Amino acid sequence: MQWQSPPIPSVALHLTNALHAKLNSLTKPVGSLGQLENLAFRIGMMQGVTSPVITAPQVLIFAGDHGAALDGVSAYPQDVTWQMVDNFLSGGAAISVLSRANNLGLIVVDAGVNHDFEAHIFQRHTTHPQFINEKIAHGTKSFVHGAAMSRDEACAALAAGRKIAERVCSEGTNLIAFGEMGIGNTASASLLMHHFTGVPLVDCIGRGTGLDDVGLARKQALLARAVTHIKKDADVIDALAQYGGFEIAMMAGAMLGAATQRAVIVVDGFISSAALLVAAAIDRDVKDYAICAHLSDERGHALMLNALEVKPLLSLQMRLGEGTGAAIAIPIIIAATKLLSEMATFEAAEVSQAIALKEASNLDALN
Amino acid sequence: MQWQSPPIPSVALHLTNALHAKLNSLTKPVGSLGQLENLAFRIGMMQGVTSPVITAPQVLIFAGDHGAALDGVSAYPQDVTWQMVDNFLSGGAAISVLSRANNLGLIVVDAGVNHDFEAHIFQRHTTHPQFINEKIAHGTKSFVHGAAMSRDEACAALAAGRKIAERVCSEGTNLIAFGEMGIGNTASASLLMHHFTGVPLVDCIGRGTGLDDVGLARKQALLARAVTHIKKDADVIDALAQYGGFEIAMMAGAMLGAATQRAVIVVDGFISSAALLVAAAIDRDVKDYAICAHLSDERGHALMLNALEVKPLLSLQMRLGEGTGAAIAIPIIIAATKLLSEMATFEAAEVSQAIALKEASNLDALN
Repeated sequence: MQWQSPPIPSVALHLTNALHAKLNSLTKPVGSLGQLENLAFRIGMMQGVTSPVITAPQVLIFAGDHGAALDGVSAYPQDVTWQMVDNFLSGGAAISVLSRANNLGLIVVDAGVNHDFEAHIFQRHTTHPQFINEKIAHGTKSFVHGAAMSRDEACAALAAGRKIAERVCSEGTNLIAFGEMGIGNTASASLLMHHFTGVPLVDCIGRGTGLDDVGLARKQALLARAVTHIKKDADVIDALAQYGGFEIAMMAGAMLGAATQRAVIVVDGFISSAALLVAAAIDRDVKDYAICAHLSDERGHALMLNALEVKPLLSLQMRLGEGTGAAIAIPIIIAATKLLSEMATFEAAEVSQAIALKEASNLDALN
Repeated sequence: MQWQSPPIPSVALHLTNALHAKLNSLTKPVGSLGQLENLAFRIGMMQGVTSPVITAPQVLIFAGDHGAALDGVSAYPQDVTWQMVDNFLSGGAAISVLSRANNLGLIVVDAGVNHDFEAHIFQRHTTHPQFINEKIAHGTKSFVHGAAMSRDEACAALAAGRKIAERVCSEGTNLIAFGEMGIGNTASASLLMHHFTGVPLVDCIGRGTGLDDVGLARKQALLARAVTHIKKDADVIDALAQYGGFEIAMMAGAMLGAATQRAVIVVDGFISSAALLVAAAIDRDVKDYAICAHLSDERGHALMLNALEVKPLLSLQMRLGEGTGAAIAIPIIIAATKLLSEMATFEAAEVSQAIALKEASNLDALN
């Protein structure tokens, strides 16, 4: 099975000058809104208009389990994955609170959790409107001992992700924030990082949800074994299948799908950025639609963002995942976008512009 | 005339353990929300409760003119101060857009603008509901040649600021963001910074709204002259009166007033931080209620925040003022506060906690 990557439209390069001119006509010193101006510019380029608008922003959380969790790559038991999915849908998780606070839609995708949700989800809500079942399998196999998934599974996950993003966009969303849940998935992300960036493995591995020194040493040993199994001539799909997980693969597919719809992709932390690495290895143009929300406290994230050649918007020492860093950044992205459509120009507001150099520079008159 | 500083209540030190325990009981790895947890903790301490709530967040913009603008400390003419006040009230300024985007109230205070607003404000709106007239005078005198204001004027500005903050809080607001408008006011802020921190003058002076090299040299020369006029034994009020401006003095008074009401003080950039320096020189406890929203791109701000011993939340290369950096940070502050009152605990959500060390550390079993 081969993954057919969808075509990503180019951003509106022909609007470069028009967007800069509009930003510079607004009632503020040129460039004085810093990164907000850069965000407004980029979103104008993505949407292909000089008055961009964000509509129906959505957080998508992809959840999946990792066979390697049973080998001890995480400080938490595998059951936490499904328990947290339940918590997302019940509204008590951090991402639930942050999404409500910022008026963001929240959808949880079962990409491959090792649990059958239907029973109790049906019991509570008949069917939960925020839940999408795209389960590929009940968790991946452990990458410690071989491939986490088959090529077919990797391709199926990518395709399902694309389909989900396209559906969400067809319902009026033009900004998707990408979060995840999966006990053990910082390990997969570290392996993918090492594979796609060439950064030494040890620099790709961090404490995840909170390993102590002994746990970290164990994780390092397990991942050092994992990299011995990969084929010398592995392509993107091979690498993704080797290391997993289902939630990372489906997220990468959804990022590619979002880019085909010219939607803004808001990347969360270490795992979400690893999905962007995978997506960019498939089609580099996906990065033109991606905004990296924050620098995670997870070791390796700074080097990963360097490799992606992107700068994060925030740095708040967060390392939870779930899309929490992305959710926190979205009001800034939306507000920045509104500057282009709602600010007055110097001309319209009848505000005087900067004094010409020759008037202001006569220092001698003072002395 | 002497300024009677109002008593600032102590933050709720007795809740330190209870707040940490509550944060650690929530469904996330301990500390994984980084600065968000710190914000939630601090606001709990300010409000004296373990489930703090932010109500009716307000942006207050203090506007005033500076005699020194006529000596050429800014790239913009003095008229821009009143023109921008008009722009704030018409809804076209950056802070207007950002306040609307984030559902923040916006009030503009005339602390001493060199312009009579009444005529056209009445003409347009009879009386503008977002405008408060507390004009001390039509701009300060130039600090280049002597004191910018009298001690009486400085005390009157502090008192007016306190009164405004107390009124706003009495109407249900418990978070105030502090912004300003005043052509020439980065110069006043630099002088106050030099006076209160002892940082060498040249390191306190930046390009403001966008001076070129010639303009910057002129500003440096003017400010070097300004510091020669100050009395050797100047107290806080003397220094404030010497350097101005009315908007900085009134903002400092309003910060002290907000702290008496246990309201959260959100500090914007360079000038707003200079007002906090003044307020803290009057009563150091005001800092317990202050959150510094962002690191401005204005030279000197990083050193000023160091002197205040505070860390900024954001760093987005903004340098506009108006409260724009504070407005951008408020959704993060509100969302962080909601974590304490809305997140589920591990117990309530039936989520498993981290695996005990002895279970996870058996590395030998692998090999």
